[in-house]
Amino acid sequence: MSTKTLHIDGDRLLTRLSELAKRGARDDGGCNRLAFTDADKEGRDLVTGWMRELGMAVSIDGIGNGVARRPGREEGPPVMIGSHIDTVRTGGRYDGNYGVLSGLEVVETLKDAGITTRRPLAVAFFSNEEGSRVAPDMMGSLVYVGGFGLEEAHAAVTIDGKRVGEELARIGYRGDAPTPGPVPYAYVELHIEQGPVLEAEGFRIGAVTGVQGISWTEVTVRGQSNHAGTTPMSYRHDAGYVAGEAAAFVRRLTKEMGGRQVGTVGSIVLEPNLVNVVAQKAVFTVDLRNTDEKLLQSAEARLDEFLGTIADAEAVEISTRRLARFEPVDFDPRMISLVEETARSLGATVMRLPAGAGHDAQMLARVCPAGMIFTPSVKGLSHNVREHTDPADLELGANVLLQTVLTLTETDPFKAASWRAS
Amino acid sequence: MSTKTLHIDGDRLLTRLSELAKRGARDDGGCNRLAFTDADKEGRDLVTGWMRELGMAVSIDGIGNGVARRPGREEGPPVMIGSHIDTVRTGGRYDGNYGVLSGLEVVETLKDAGITTRRPLAVAFFSNEEGSRVAPDMMGSLVYVGGFGLEEAHAAVTIDGKRVGEELARIGYRGDAPTPGPVPYAYVELHIEQGPVLEAEGFRIGAVTGVQGISWTEVTVRGQSNHAGTTPMSYRHDAGYVAGEAAAFVRRLTKEMGGRQVGTVGSIVLEPNLVNVVAQKAVFTVDLRNTDEKLLQSAEARLDEFLGTIADAEAVEISTRRLARFEPVDFDPRMISLVEETARSLGATVMRLPAGAGHDAQMLARVCPAGMIFTPSVKGLSHNVREHTDPADLELGANVLLQTVLTLTETDPFKAASWRAS
Repeated sequence: MSTKTLHIDGDRLLTRLSELAKRGARDDGGCNRLAFTDADKEGRDLVTGWMRELGMAVSIDGIGNGVARRPGREEGPPVMIGSHIDTVRTGGRYDGNYGVLSGLEVVETLKDAGITTRRPLAVAFFSNEEGSRVAPDMMGSLVYVGGFGLEEAHAAVTIDGKRVGEELARIGYRGDAPTPGPVPYAYVELHIEQGPVLEAEGFRIGAVTGVQGISWTEVTVRGQSNHAGTTPMSYRHDAGYVAGEAAAFVRRLTKEMGGRQVGTVGSIVLEPNLVNVVAQKAVFTVDLRNTDEKLLQSAEARLDEFLGTIADAEAVEISTRRLARFEPVDFDPRMISLVEETARSLGATVMRLPAGAGHDAQMLARVCPAGMIFTPSVKGLSHNVREHTDPADLELGANVLLQTVLTLTETDPFKAASWRAS
Repeated sequence: MSTKTLHIDGDRLLTRLSELAKRGARDDGGCNRLAFTDADKEGRDLVTGWMRELGMAVSIDGIGNGVARRPGREEGPPVMIGSHIDTVRTGGRYDGNYGVLSGLEVVETLKDAGITTRRPLAVAFFSNEEGSRVAPDMMGSLVYVGGFGLEEAHAAVTIDGKRVGEELARIGYRGDAPTPGPVPYAYVELHIEQGPVLEAEGFRIGAVTGVQGISWTEVTVRGQSNHAGTTPMSYRHDAGYVAGEAAAFVRRLTKEMGGRQVGTVGSIVLEPNLVNVVAQKAVFTVDLRNTDEKLLQSAEARLDEFLGTIADAEAVEISTRRLARFEPVDFDPRMISLVEETARSLGATVMRLPAGAGHDAQMLARVCPAGMIFTPSVKGLSHNVREHTDPADLELGANVLLQTVLTLTETDPFKAASWRAS
């Protein structure tokens, strides 16, 4: 049979998405599977179970990345389909999960059709892509490609004060597969857009050109706790005020820079955090992103300048800690074209666009040709329990993934790197 | 003997302050006895024990106020010395405690000298003056004077989700003495200034003229959680940004109004409070104070206007809840003069000044002549573990209290209200 007529089973994909969404389910319909929690373990158990049911050999490495392999007719590095199954605290069911479960859908479709691909296939979920419980985000894929040491990752401390290494052992996902992991022939990630562009512009598939640069900074302000009624304004060293003014500054910065510059103060914690006490301490985060590295550096420099000025003005002590820093990534032009052409061959409207969020694909792009396929997000809602993508778009995206992967397994667009079997 | 030569025992007072500071002691030398906690119970047990050792009859009312009585040579309403023994989370050892323990020192000094005053004496500690764990502040004295119903007070919910009535029962301080409580002949409260004025101006005693008006508002902002990387700035409904801008606004407001206007955003809580998620919800507090009621109302109106404007601009929903509202209070001019003259008669430098913080005295002022004596706070530090007052100033303040109280017990500056014995 021609593989061109193969088609994934949309209902089966939706059923798996629903089943996984029950792990760490929130009362409001969303998902809360922060990395390395009990809920994350439940999600991992479910997905690795499915992988084994499909006859795949599953390996878990030291940071908990799961890689399931399906042999090809030939030896050599596999075409890897991957994403993540952890979520933010107020997550939906598609972010990450859609890419991993579509990978399983590709494998099951091939299995049902009795097809063994020429190159091997791998389906991977990478640990802690979100970084919501512990920085950096994309931790698992970064360790996989050798960009972050395993010991350093194990020593990272979660927002609830736990070490990653101990949490991995606790949930039974501190595996023995080596890191850095074996280099795939190519890497493809299917993901919801998480932004409003495809829907607003009327396209059903996005051929992702690259990923924005990301800069995360944690800012700690040490002022002086004092009585909110008796302390004249000029005597204050108010850490809470500094945090507030910083949030206002970040907004102003994005307005002045315009373009693709975005900025967010998503977390603020004050001490003692009481109505009638001037805060002695504030810890807040600043998330800056831009597709242009020079502009991102300029935004960082302006943040530093702001913090220096306000530290002097308020006579508070300000220290910063870099939680994550990734330069913008450009995907391999052949991968972008392949996704674009595959989508068109399936009759889909397709648009080239950059990813606003960080993705595991940008880490894999360091070691092999990598690309991404986007499907629309209704109203652009993301990291939100009301995140939604139309079922027909989910199915279309998985079919684009299937055909993209088949081109990569059956033809020779790239020269293969050496694959070390784990 | 002439009572004019009586002198309190400074060492004994300091020892009691040290003992009480061990209850709810923080590792950094401060005190954490938030109202109705286990630590608060320990403080109450210690102080009521001392009251009974001095031969006083202790009554506990329904909101946990403790009143210890020492009979006089005549019947009738007592001269009451009072303050509070709860602290903020980052409290020192003097705020409140100094007034209550100086009351015990006055009683012990009289007892040692074999003196029975003409009018009875009472020493009181009022529950939850700080309001840090549950609003309103000055809850106990407000219930005592009939300004707040006992049922409503019992139903108030703490920041950790407990009801005041249940917490009182749990720690054994939901007593049966009736509220409103009996009206004293007069009320005197000795307190540290909690501000920098006396030290900066070089005075050792403050004759307090009144208390600032207080307005506490809790603001809840409901926006939309969304991805911090993929959501263009113009699509955001960022509750965290609104909270930050509000903190910046409050500072700007105090600058523009000047004078005695102070304002503080001491508490900010974001949801989900993650680095890479636009906050869907923010709850923050605004503490506004002024000695002038009209100016305080104007500050409140400008806050409301700001919130309305930013709610429209960001398309977020903003609701407010009044946590506490007290108009400025002027103390009885005869009490101010009495404190001033008594301090001068003891050779102390004395300055008239308003209180920046709320005090139980402002509640008692609703039912009887009330006044306050201030001692300097080193560097004006308050609601801070490094709160400090020089021991010599503590002793002087307690002696001013002793002589002020003796004038009130032995002479007839005021016409007595009717006293209902509890």
